[in-house]
Amino acid sequence: MHGKSGLVFIGLGINDEMDITVKGLDAARECGCLFSEFYTAALMGSTPERLEEMIGRPVISLTREDVESGDLILEKAKNERVGLLTAGDPMAATTHADLRLRAENEGIPTEVINGISILVAAPSALGLQHYKFGRTTTIPFVEQGYFPTSPYEALIKNFEAGLHTLVLLDIHSDEGRYLTADEAMKTLLLMEKKAGGNFFEEHPLICGLGRIGSDAAVIRCGDIHSLKEKDFGPPLHCIVIPGPLHYMEKEALKILGNTPEKLLDDY
Amino acid sequence: MHGKSGLVFIGLGINDEMDITVKGLDAARECGCLFSEFYTAALMGSTPERLEEMIGRPVISLTREDVESGDLILEKAKNERVGLLTAGDPMAATTHADLRLRAENEGIPTEVINGISILVAAPSALGLQHYKFGRTTTIPFVEQGYFPTSPYEALIKNFEAGLHTLVLLDIHSDEGRYLTADEAMKTLLLMEKKAGGNFFEEHPLICGLGRIGSDAAVIRCGDIHSLKEKDFGPPLHCIVIPGPLHYMEKEALKILGNTPEKLLDDY
Repeated sequence: MHGKSGLVFIGLGINDEMDITVKGLDAARECGCLFSEFYTAALMGSTPERLEEMIGRPVISLTREDVESGDLILEKAKNERVGLLTAGDPMAATTHADLRLRAENEGIPTEVINGISILVAAPSALGLQHYKFGRTTTIPFVEQGYFPTSPYEALIKNFEAGLHTLVLLDIHSDEGRYLTADEAMKTLLLMEKKAGGNFFEEHPLICGLGRIGSDAAVIRCGDIHSLKEKDFGPPLHCIVIPGPLHYMEKEALKILGNTPEKLLDDY
Repeated sequence: MHGKSGLVFIGLGINDEMDITVKGLDAARECGCLFSEFYTAALMGSTPERLEEMIGRPVISLTREDVESGDLILEKAKNERVGLLTAGDPMAATTHADLRLRAENEGIPTEVINGISILVAAPSALGLQHYKFGRTTTIPFVEQGYFPTSPYEALIKNFEAGLHTLVLLDIHSDEGRYLTADEAMKTLLLMEKKAGGNFFEEHPLICGLGRIGSDAAVIRCGDIHSLKEKDFGPPLHCIVIPGPLHYMEKEALKILGNTPEKLLDDY
C-alpha cells in the first residue's frame, strides 16, 4: 500500500505494547488517524495510555459497534491513511477480515501487518510441536445453563487423529469478563457429561496457560479434576489438551509445565 | 529470565529485519552474545548485515551442526546472556525446542520471545478463518524419485473434516534450495497418482503464496493444473488447500487471491 489513503491493519501481539513489530510501529506512526479495537481480543499487559506513548500519537478506541458497522473507519480511510490496531494477529478475528473485504470492495487499499498470536505462542510455551495441532476451538461462557458440546467433540476428534488441541476462552471485554482456565475446565467436564463421553476419565492430562508472553506467565499441566480448582491468576488464559506425545514433548511438559510423570505414562 | 546468564530465543518473523517485535529488539540489545540460525527457516527479505545494523550489535551466524550439537551455545549461556535469533517463531522448529530443554536440564535459564509466523500469516493473507485449519503438513524435495504421500493424505483428512490445510515447503538453506509453490504442486499431483487418489480432480482449487509479509508478496488461487506451470518468483513460498468455504471466505479468495468464480462454486 503506497498511496496516501487506505486502511492498515496492525497486529499488537499478545501481551503489551512491546509486542508490536518494528514494521507495525513504523506503520502506525505514518498513519494520519489511528484506531484501536480491544473487544475481539485484549492486550492485558498494557493500557491505552502506554500504547499512545509508545507510538507517540493519539489512538481512538473503538466500540464493538464502531468496528462491526465499519462506516466510520471506511469513511476516514477514503481520505487518509488509517491504522487499526488490534491485539494478536489482525486477521485472526473474522470481523477484521470482513472489514478488509468491505474496504477492498469500496476501492480502499488495505495492508496487513501481522502480529504475534496466541495460536503460535501457546504451543511454543509448552514445547509442543506446532504441526501436531488440529483445529482450534473456543469455549464460551455458560449462559443460563446453556453451552454447546462442539468444543468437546473437536478435541476428541483431534486426539483420535493424533493431534493436540488449543482451546481459546471466551472474552467479553466490554463487560470486563474473561473466561478463566479453571472455569473452562469445569465447562469441559460439563460438556463431557452432557455428551455422555468418558474422554477425561481416560485422558485427564490438560494444560492451563495464563498471561503467555508476559513476565507473569503461568503454565500448569496436570489432571483436569485437580487443575479445575486452581487459580490461574489474571487473564488472559487458554487451554491445551495434548494428543499422543512424542518423547521430546513429554520432556517439554515435564520441564516447562511441571507435569506429574505418572500422567504422561499413558500418552 | 532476570539473571545475567541464560539463553533467550528471539523470533525474527517472516520477511525482514523489521518483523522483529520491539520486545525482541530490546532483548537482543541486552544480550552479551548474539547468534543467528537460518537453516530451519530463512529471512529472505533481509541480510545478516542489515540485521546487525538494526540491532546495533555483531551477530554470529551458526551452522546446522552448531545448533544441533548446541554445545557452543550452551557453554556460552552458562556465563552470559546469549540470544539466538531465528526466523518465524523461535519454537516452531523442533531443534530449538530441543535446545531449550537441554538448557533447562543443565540449569540454564531460558526465555522465548515470540515472532510472527507463517502459520498465522498465510491464513491471514488469504482471509481464511484460522480456526478452520487442520494440521499443517510439509512437502519435501523429491530426491531420486522418492517422496512420501503423507502430505497428500493429511490434506484429504483435513478436507473431509471441513478444514483447510497449510502446506509448508522444504528448505535447504545451506544449499540455497527452496522448494517453490509450482514444484510443490507438481509433487502433490505425483502424490495423488502414487496414492491412487482423485482429490484434485474433484477439488482442483489451490492457493500458492510467495513472500508473504513483504511488499513483493504474491497470492495466486486457481486450478492446480494451471497454477503448477506459473512462476511464483523468489522464495519463500507456501501453499494452502482450502476446505469447504464459508461465504465470506469465498469472497476473500475472490478479492485477495483473484480466484476464478467458477472454481468456488463447488466449495
